[in-house]
This record gives sequence, C-alpha cells and structure tokens, in this order.
Amino acid sequence: METSEITQKLLAAKNKKEKSFADLGKLINRDEVWVAALFYRQASASEEEASIISVALELEQDIFNKLTEYPVKGLGPLVPTDPLIYRFYEIMQIYGMPMKEVIQEKFGDGIMSAIDFTLDIDKVEDPKGDRVKVTMNGKFLPYKKW
Amino acid sequence: METSEITQKLLAAKNKKEKSFADLGKLINRDEVWVAALFYRQASASEEEASIISVALELEQDIFNKLTEYPVKGLGPLVPTDPLIYRFYEIMQIYGMPMKEVIQEKFGDGIMSAIDFTLDIDKVEDPKGDRVKVTMNGKFLPYKKW
Amino acid sequence: METSEITQKLLAAKNKKEKSFADLGKLINRDEVWVAALFYRQASASEEEASIISVALELEQDIFNKLTEYPVKGLGPLVPTDPLIYRFYEIMQIYGMPMKEVIQEKFGDGIMSAIDFTLDIDKVEDPKGDRVKVTMNGKFLPYKKW
Amino acid sequence: METSEITQKLLAAKNKKEKSFADLGKLINRDEVWVAALFYRQASASEEEASIISVALELEQDIFNKLTEYPVKGLGPLVPTDPLIYRFYEIMQIYGMPMKEVIQEKFGDGIMSAIDFTLDIDKVEDPKGDRVKVTMNGKFLPYKKW
Amino acid sequence: METSEITQKLLAAKNKKEKSFADLGKLINRDEVWVAALFYRQASASEEEASIISVALELEQDIFNKLTEYPVKGLGPLVPTDPLIYRFYEIMQIYGMPMKEVIQEKFGDGIMSAIDFTLDIDKVEDPKGDRVKVTMNGKFLPYKKW
Amino acid sequence: METSEITQKLLAAKNKKEKSFADLGKLINRDEVWVAALFYRQASASEEEASIISVALELEQDIFNKLTEYPVKGLGPLVPTDPLIYRFYEIMQIYGMPMKEVIQEKFGDGIMSAIDFTLDIDKVEDPKGDRVKVTMNGKFLPYKKW
Amino acid sequence: METSEITQKLLAAKNKKEKSFADLGKLINRDEVWVAALFYRQASASEEEASIISVALELEQDIFNKLTEYPVKGLGPLVPTDPLIYRFYEIMQIYGMPMKEVIQEKFGDGIMSAIDFTLDIDKVEDPKGDRVKVTMNGKFLPYKKW
Amino acid sequence: METSEITQKLLAAKNKKEKSFADLGKLINRDEVWVAALFYRQASASEEEASIISVALELEQDIFNKLTEYPVKGLGPLVPTDPLIYRFYEIMQIYGMPMKEVIQEKFGDGIMSAIDFTLDIDKVEDPKGDRVKVTMNGKFLPYKKW
Amino acid sequence: METSEITQKLLAAKNKKEKSFADLGKLINRDEVWVAALFYRQASASEEEASIISVALELEQDIFNKLTEYPVKGLGPLVPTDPLIYRFYEIMQIYGMPMKEVIQEKFGDGIMSAIDFTLDIDKVEDPKGDRVKVTMNGKFLPYKKW
Amino acid sequence: METSEITQKLLAAKNKKEKSFADLGKLINRDEVWVAALFYRQASASEEEASIISVALELEQDIFNKLTEYPVKGLGPLVPTDPLIYRFYEIMQIYGMPMKEVIQEKFGDGIMSAIDFTLDIDKVEDPKGDRVKVTMNGKFLPYKKW
Repeated sequence: METSEITQKLLAAKNKKEKSFADLGKLINRDEVWVAALFYRQASASEEEASIISVALELEQDIFNKLTEYPVKGLGPLVPTDPLIYRFYEIMQIYGMPMKEVIQEKFGDGIMSAIDFTLDIDKVEDPKGDRVKVTMNGKFLPYKKW
Repeated sequence: METSEITQKLLAAKNKKEKSFADLGKLINRDEVWVAALFYRQASASEEEASIISVALELEQDIFNKLTEYPVKGLGPLVPTDPLIYRFYEIMQIYGMPMKEVIQEKFGDGIMSAIDFTLDIDKVEDPKGDRVKVTMNGKFLPYKKW
Repeated sequence: METSEITQKLLAAKNKKEKSFADLGKLINRDEVWVAALFYRQASASEEEASIISVALELEQDIFNKLTEYPVKGLGPLVPTDPLIYRFYEIMQIYGMPMKEVIQEKFGDGIMSAIDFTLDIDKVEDPKGDRVKVTMNGKFLPYKKW
Repeated sequence: METSEITQKLLAAKNKKEKSFADLGKLINRDEVWVAALFYRQASASEEEASIISVALELEQDIFNKLTEYPVKGLGPLVPTDPLIYRFYEIMQIYGMPMKEVIQEKFGDGIMSAIDFTLDIDKVEDPKGDRVKVTMNGKFLPYKKW
Repeated sequence: METSEITQKLLAAKNKKEKSFADLGKLINRDEVWVAALFYRQASASEEEASIISVALELEQDIFNKLTEYPVKGLGPLVPTDPLIYRFYEIMQIYGMPMKEVIQEKFGDGIMSAIDFTLDIDKVEDPKGDRVKVTMNGKFLPYKKW
Repeated sequence: METSEITQKLLAAKNKKEKSFADLGKLINRDEVWVAALFYRQASASEEEASIISVALELEQDIFNKLTEYPVKGLGPLVPTDPLIYRFYEIMQIYGMPMKEVIQEKFGDGIMSAIDFTLDIDKVEDPKGDRVKVTMNGKFLPYKKW
Repeated sequence: METSEITQKLLAAKNKKEKSFADLGKLINRDEVWVAALFYRQASASEEEASIISVALELEQDIFNKLTEYPVKGLGPLVPTDPLIYRFYEIMQIYGMPMKEVIQEKFGDGIMSAIDFTLDIDKVEDPKGDRVKVTMNGKFLPYKKW
Repeated sequence: METSEITQKLLAAKNKKEKSFADLGKLINRDEVWVAALFYRQASASEEEASIISVALELEQDIFNKLTEYPVKGLGPLVPTDPLIYRFYEIMQIYGMPMKEVIQEKFGDGIMSAIDFTLDIDKVEDPKGDRVKVTMNGKFLPYKKW
Repeated sequence: METSEITQKLLAAKNKKEKSFADLGKLINRDEVWVAALFYRQASASEEEASIISVALELEQDIFNKLTEYPVKGLGPLVPTDPLIYRFYEIMQIYGMPMKEVIQEKFGDGIMSAIDFTLDIDKVEDPKGDRVKVTMNGKFLPYKKW
Repeated sequence: METSEITQKLLAAKNKKEKSFADLGKLINRDEVWVAALFYRQASASEEEASIISVALELEQDIFNKLTEYPVKGLGPLVPTDPLIYRFYEIMQIYGMPMKEVIQEKFGDGIMSAIDFTLDIDKVEDPKGDRVKVTMNGKFLPYKKW
C-alpha cells in the first residue's frame, strides 16, 4: 500500500502551499473527499479542474496530465492493515448483511451504486469526544430483469 | 456466507408477523439497522429487549437465549461476492485512503470507532431514481501516546 | 461450489417436465439466462413469475417462497475451477484492461453496470464448428463528481 | 496491476498522435479491442502489423520488437479492484453457473473457447443513458472422449 | 478434497466386481483414464455408456443419472497436498514457462487445448525401477485475431 | 511472473543467433525442453554444457556462471494466468484424481517422480488442426515403509 | 484440521487397549511414526499388516478396509495453527534455504525424497530438559537431464 | 523468494575462496547448517564470529555489520515452489499429525522448540543411492499451566 | 470460527451453574484465562483437574475425556473478523516490529515463548472508562547456536 | 516485510549514537515501545518530539518531516514468518477466544481498544531463565446501541 510518487508529490505541494482539501475543493466547486480521491488517483479531473489545481499548487506538466487520466482504481491489499481503513472493512464485515436486509426492505432487490455516489465527512463536536460523521449517498439500482 | 439457522428462523418469524425492522425497532427504541444486526447475530440484546422481541415474534426459548449472547462477529469471506455488500468493500478500496487523509486533516492521527458507532439508512426520493443514504457516526479515537 | 439443495430440486423438476430454460422463460416473458439465474438463486422473481413457474414445474410451497426472496448472490471460490466458467475469468484477466481502455475511449470515466444489465446467449451455427455468442448489455454509469 | 513501461509508452504515443484504437485498427484491419489487447501485451502482432503501427505512432525499434513477441498473458491480481474490471468478475460470479446451464443446454458438455474468440464493444445510444454492449463470440469446444 | 459420495459408491462397486478401469473402458471403448475421470465426475457419459457401466457394476438408478449429467468440474484446493497430484502441480511450476517457449517455437502464439484433449498413462518396465509415462495430446489452438 | 533479466538476455542471444531450442540441444545432446528449462533457470548445466552454449550464443561470463548454479526453482503465482500454462493447471485440477487412481491401480501406493523425470513436446500434424503431444516420463517411487 | 472419523475410531481403540504406537509397530515390524501415519490415513498397510492391527485393536471390517486403501494425503490448511506442527513449518521457513545450500554442496542439484523416506522420533534425556530428536532419512534424487 | 544482495555477496565470496560451509564452520566452531543460516540472514553472529568469517572471506565492513544484526527471519512464500524445500513442507503436511501423536505419547502436551534447536545434515552412502540424513534436535517445552 | 459442540456444552453447563471462569479456576488453582482456554480446547487438564470441573459442572463422561486430551490447537481463519480478537491481530501488525526491537535490545536474539507462558486479564477501573489490562509473561528463549 | 529506508536510517543513527529506545524515550517522556513504533512509522510525533529526537540523533530534515506525518500503519504479510512476531500471532490464534470470553465476562459486549492503548515490555529476571513481560492496557469500549 505504498503511496505512489504522483500522490506524494501532490501531497507535498499541498503541504507547502498550506492548503486543506476543502480549500482546494472550493476552487473547483468540489467536495474535499473528492479532491482527496483525485490526489490518490481514484478519480479524474476535467482539463479545467486540473488546470485550476495545477496553478494553485504550482504543479509540473506531467502531474497535470495525470490528473485528467482515467486511473486504474483501488488502493491495495485484500484486507487493509491500517486501523483507520480497517474499521471500514470491519463495518462491511459486521453490518454488511444487516444493511442488505434494510436496504432491500426499503427498496427491493438491487444495490446502492458506488459510482453514482457521493461521500462526505463531517466533524461533529461532542463534549464526550468529537465524532466522525460519514455520509454516503448512492443511487439505488434495481436489478434489471430481462 | 450461509445464513445461520437462528437468523433464518428470526427472519421467517418476522415475515410471518409482517413486521419491518423499523417496526421491531420501535418496540425497543432501537434503530432498524441495529435490529437487523441483532438478527444476524452481530449485536447482543439486553434481557428486556430480547423479551419484547420474543413476545412480538413468538420466538422459542433457545432463540431468546441466543439474542442475549455476545456473538462471535463477522459475516464471512475476505472479499464478499454479493453485489450490494461488495459495493461497501469497493468504497473502502477506492475511498479508504482519501477518507483517511480528510479525517486526519480534521482530527489528527487516530481512527473513527466502529464500536462507539451508529449506522442509519435512509431512502431519499429523487425523480431521477431514489437514493440510498448511509450515515455512519463514530467517535474519533486519537492514538494514545505513552 | 456445491449446487444448493433448492437449485438441485429446481433442476430436477425442470428435467422431469422436460422443459428448457427458454420454455420456462416464454411463460413469464423472460430470457433463458435470467431463468437460469433465478434457478441458481442469483435473481428474484415476482410473486406472479414464481407462481407461473411453480405451476409449470409443480414445485413445493417452500421452493416457491425461495424464488421470491432476494438472495445473497455470488457462486463461489475466488478463482473458478470449472473450465467453462474459468474461461470467463480468463477473459477478464486477458481482456479486462483492453476493455477498460476502449470503454473509456468511447464513454469517458465510468463503468458498465452489472445491475442494469442483460446477458444473452446464442448459438451461431458454423461449418467449422458452432460458436457461442454472449451478448452483455449494461448501462454506462459515469463517475459522479461531487 | 501496474501498467508496464511498454504499455505506457504505447499509450503515450497514441495520445500524442491523437489516434483512437479504432483508427489504429483500421490501418491493420483489426478490431479496436484487439489493438488495445496488443497494447497491453495480451496479443501478438505479425511483423507487418507491428510495422504499420510503428510507422503510424513513430515507435522505437525495441517497442516494435515487443509487439511481435508472444507475451506471458494475464493482467493481475486474483480479484481486480478497479470497478470497471471488477464488474466482469462479478458477472462471472453471478451469471457463471447460469451461463454454464444455458450453454450446456444448447451445445452439450463443453466450453466456449477464449482462444478462438472475438470480443467487440459497442456504444448503444439510449435516452435513459447510453449502454455498453459487449459481444463475445467463441467457438464451442465439446469435450473429447477417448 | 473429500471424495464425493457418488464417487465413493462407484469405486466401491468397481472394487466389489474386481474390475480395473481398463476393464470398464473396454466395455465402452474408452480409455481407462477417461473412465476414472467419469468416476470422479470430471466427464459425462452418453446414455448408452452409462447404461453399460451400470449393468456391469449393478449401479442404482440415481448413480446412473449422475453419470450422464454435465458436472461442475475441478477437484479441489488451489495447491494440492497429495504428493502424487502435487508432482503435476510442480511440473507446471517448473516446466510451465519452458513448455510455453517450446510450444510457441513449434506452433506460434496459442495454447494446447485441455478440452479437445486425451491423456494416457502407461507403465514402462525398467530394471532400475518401473516408470510412469503420461501422454497428453491436445489440439493446438492459435489465438484468433479479429 | 516477470521473466528474469538473465532469462531475457539468454532469449535475446538465442534470437539474435536464430537458434531454436532444438538446435542448442543438439550441441550438448539434450532435449529442447531441458534447454528451455535451463534458460528459465529451472535446471543447471555442467561446466562443459554451459561452455558450449556460451560459445554458441556468445554469452558474457556472468551468464555462463549462472547456467551452472543450482537455481531456486518454481516460476510464479499459485494459479498461473497465462492461458497456455493455465491449461496444465486445469489438467491437474480435472484429471489429478483420475490419474492418481490409474497410477495406483497399475503401480500401488506411490508417486511419479518429477525429478527422475523427462518431458518431451512433439508436433503431431493433423488435417483437422495440428496437435501438441506432451510426454512425461517419471520413475515410479513406491512409498517406503519403515 | 478436523480429525476424520476413522482416525478418531482408531485412536479410541488404541486408547481402550492401552497400546502405544510403538507396541503396535512391534506387532508388524514397523516404526511408531509409520503406524501413527497409518492411523492418520497418510500411509497404506498391506492386508497382513491391517489384519494384525485389526485383531490387536478389535477393529470393525470397514476400518480394516480403509487401512489398506491408498489415501489422498495431506492434513490440512496451508499454514498450520497447532504450535507443535507449526514449528516444523517454521523450520522450513527459517532453515529451508540453508538446508538447500548444504544438501547441494554435499550432493549436487537434486532433492531429498519424501517418498523413499523414513522418519524417527527419539526422546533424549537431558537434565536441563529432555529433548526431541527427529531423524529424517530420504534418498537423494539428482535431477535427471534429458 | 529472491536471494538478498547480502546473501549473494556472501555466497560469491565463499565461492571465490573455495570454502565449504563446513570449512567456515570449523573456523568458528559452528555447524555448516548454522553457517548457511547465517549467510541467509536467519541467524546472527557474535562480533568475534563475524570477524573471523570476514577475514576468511575478505568481506566489506557493511557486510560484517549485517552478520551481527538480529535479522527479521523467514524466507518467503506461504508454500515454497522449490522442490527441495517443498519436500520439507510436504513432510509437515503428511507427517505433522503423526509426529504430534508420537511426541505427545512420549512427552505429554507441549512442543519441540525450534529456537533451542539444532539441525544437522549428513550424507549416508548407500549402493542403492546415497541418502540425506537430517537430524533435528529441539528441547521439549511442556505447556505451562497457570 | 464455529464454536465446537464440546465447547458449547461446556459453556452451557457453566452458565447453568452460574459459575465464572474465575470460580472454576479457584477449584483447581488455575487462572480464569487458562480455564477458558481449556473450555475452548486450547489446553489439556490433568485427570484430577478434569474430575473436579466435571463434578462442579455435572459433565458427561465423554466431555470429561475430551478435557484430558491434548488438542489440535488454533481457533480459526488467518485473519479474525471478530472485532475483539482482531484488535490483538492489529497489535501484532502495528507493534510487532517495535516489540521485536525492544525485546532484542533487552535480551538479544531470541523470542518470548508462547508455551512457557502465562496470560492474565484484569479490569482496571478508571473514571474515564474502565480499562482492560492484559499481561503476558513468557520465558525468553535465546537462539541456540550449534 | 522489508524494513523501509527511513526506518533503516533511524536505526542506523540510533546505533551510531549508542542510544537505547529507553534513552530516547526519556528525552521526550515516552515509553521505549512507543519510540520503537515511531521508528517503524507506526506512530506520529509532535513537532517538539520530532525535534528533540532529530537533535539527539542528528537526523536530516526530511526524516524529521516523516516523523510528524500520520503514517499508513501495519507492517506486513497476513501471517508473519519471523518467530518472535509469529508468537504474538499464535497467542491470538490460541488464546483469542478464551480472552474474548474472560473480557466479556468482566466487561460485557465490547472490545479492548488498540488505539486508546499502551504497551510495555519488561525484563523479569529469573534463575530458571529470564522472562519477557508484555503489558497491554486498552480502554474497554462497549458496543453502542442505537
């Protein structure tokens, strides 16, 4: 799960400019998670989006090019070892079937799209310890019968 | 990923009584996803909760007992094959590192707890096709230094 | 990759009645591959569809019930050993990236849906040896940006 | 699933010349998918085919040589993480056994060849969203008895 | 790698009748290895072949039926532990690439079919220790270009 | 399953000199498959054999040295993806147990050696399509009892 | 790594008769490890050996039969979890390459047979703690060149 | 299972000086297998031992340093492909449970240490073919109860 | 990771008698974790210990027998899915190398025994949330040189 | 399980300065295990902590930067081969379920946090052989119901 050289350069440029993902997102009217996905080469930018980010971070031409490519997606090993990421794997292991039951009860046989999909992360302040709120929103796709 | 006999009996009783997970949740003041997790033996009920559900679904004594046990959790194979569940695995593969970056930017080094954690599923009506909204809410746990 | 008891009973009933998948498909206005998917519990029928098939094959009540359930999908081991099925795995291994390139060239960054999807199998007669024609037709889903 | 250096150079040359896979295919009378397979080193060209493509893309000699070699085929991990490619894995998982049943019903015991085989990709325009049509055509090979 | 109940019954019937695989093969004009493949449900017999074997071994009707089914093929774990079978895995590991080179040198880009294929086993007597001779004979299938 | 640098250099030298594996085999009185195994570092040559091949292919000294080393053998992933090599894996999966039965019937409890072993590949011309004939010949090793 | 029913019955009979593996070995002139291998169905007995053991342990007929069958060998998971057995896996992991070097230095390119092979276990008394002595003795098999 | 650069340099120096592992062992009063383990970085030498070997083989300073480090041990893939090493894996698969039974019969519940452990390799001359004798000697460690 | 029938019976008897593991441990002068390990068949009791526990829990004879057997140890899948157990896997993944460094700095090259080993669990009350204290105590075993 | 270049440089600097992990820990008021975790990039330091260590070890700027980054955690393969680390894997395999039972008996349904967590290693001198004492201390996290 080595971070690729391009991602490392993008993160280094971002740190140098002291920009948050949200700062960069505002420049191109995108969510911070989507920008982070772009940095990790899990999403592709339009020419215009890539251009605005390149200017803001003073990126080299070949990094600009990479931002507009359609990447081969997926980050790594079958079971992640990083604890933060593993917890999402654990949620799938523990709550996968319960979610399937509830989604099917509400929608019928089908899935939540992970393509026509958005993901937001919010910080919920709490005196007993702040909380991470992750909101996923995907189009329901019913199985087509033919 | 065979559904266990106890889960099958619970689901059959629920169907017979024509209750939704939300109906059952209301009886014990719990969310529908938590009830589905209980049915799949990924959560444990108090004696009182188990008792209310047993009455509502006319469960046998040994199923009642199982509901209060602390189960061995986790549902199955390393990589799920069911498309609905796989999409959550895919989200972890594609957005795992971007989420890590954004959570760390907002909170520092640590994780979102999957134990001090809630998960809700909502149906968002949309003329272009209804959407599934999954909201995860977990306590941020900073790494303790010692 | 054991065939489940329900699938075995369905196949036995079909053989006894000497029906092809196409015959059954005509009764409910569905394709033969979809009917086979239903038999292997990879798809779910409406009450009406299940009812017509149950009558045609003289199925027991509990098999009728299973046909309308939303199944946990996916048939088996990570890498299939059956040669007929393995060839589709091989096609994914050999032509996966080339298909990705061509689809992206034609459509942009996104995927072919395997849910809003149909699959047909035709026999193409050929003096040098008949040929199997598999036609997959899935909606293109562009990655949503947010 | 790193893209090899040769593939990267071929794709870069193609982009520089602004050729589609179909453009290149027309030069050598081959399908665009086959050309993409050649670029990913999953197929081998004749001297003449390699020569035409080399001229069109102004390739270096050692890349020309690689195009005519018989490559070690297969692109990568047991289960692909890229969503576009994974969907073909999912189709094998979900529809593998149903396809086996229907093919055997039509042809008897045997397989669809993945060697004496063609694969085409078409864009089917649709007001509800364009569709990807993948047509596979492989010789049926009956099991030889001996 | 449990031997299935049907295979066990077939082997028991064969032992009781004191027939070798070659004896059975002669009755239906098939090689002994093919008959063993039939017993392990890796091949399917015609009605007539199944009938002759059923009479010779006094098989029950449901075993007769199984012999004519088209089985789901493949015997087991990714890497076999039985030493006799492992040696064939080892041959693939050690001589796989050398065989690929020599076959390609003689035939071009393609494969040896494992479907249009025969396999014979002979005992070669040798004063220094008898030898096992395995002869595989498969049709060469050149990659189709399209 | 990357081809090692030494193997690549050996293959390049062989191509430059336009020698077949059989040509090289004749120089040292060895079979073409054994020579290919030597090139892929699955076998070790005597000083004399290495010397003759080095002269014929004008190899550098350090490649000469490698040819006489006893290599760490085995070529790669648990399940090969290259179709030509996979077919040998498939033969082991499909015919492994049948071969075990027939070998044991002829020889008793033991194995075919993959060490005291030869492997030949012949082209059998056939109007319906040429055939690949692979002949394996290994000493039978009975289990020692003690 | 479940112990099979036959092994369980054999061990139970042995315990009831209060025989050690060495006691049983003396009756048939075999080593205690070989007898244990027979009990775990990793070796096959002659009719006479099976008969002597059957009498000594008052075994049922069908267990007698199993003792003379040629079993499918190998006990289980890729990496054993039982600590006693794991240590032998660890020895292979840690000392595998060093043993290869020393064996090759003494014998040339080849292997130690695990078929023409014996294995003895002795207890070496030692005031600092008794020691387990495992002696493996296998025929050296040089690689055949051809 | 690539041999590390340090191991390669050590082996090259040993070959140049024409020393056997036994020759080097005599210099530091250690067994040849232990010296080979040191070369493969599976054991660590004292300063004095490293110094004697460094002088004998004219090693560079940084290789000397590596010899005294406590290495991360273990050589490679879960299942080894090299036939010589695989045979030790096979012995564990075939004779693991039998050894467990015999060791427990002689010693009680516990294990043979692979740390307080020695391993010797001898060549036993035999007119029917020389034999490899591997002697493992490990302290028995009974399970502590608490 | 199914709990075995014997373990289920032991836990049921313990629940019926309303004994804690500590209660049972006091009867035989053993720690509660060791008793739990005995229940999960990861440790073996003496006749006397088994007898005291059998009386206390009114166990059947065949469960008594199982308690004194030396079990095949290890509980399950390579990577556990139960969150409580996974955290110990995570500790090994995250702190494995740091522990190795610190243990080696204090003790030299060797390991902590998991056989001559005790493990205690304490509840540490804490106003900010009670804490689990796990104390492992294993004999240091230095690598033997030979 | 290659040690990363940064870890190697950190360890080399530590050795050159002849500091123990405890020495470094005292400078920043942290435990030696935490410092080792920092060196293996499993923990992140504050600017001040990184600065003190950088001065003490005369580190370069880019290593200083790495110390304050939030790393991707986890050290390697699913099952570790190094014997010292494997023993912790074995403890999880053998005592995982017993620990789960005892922790649940004392605390209810929940887990021991591996994030709000400390780990200490002590040397316990013992005339029969010194002992390693590992103390883990993690907050108990009860499952939240919702």
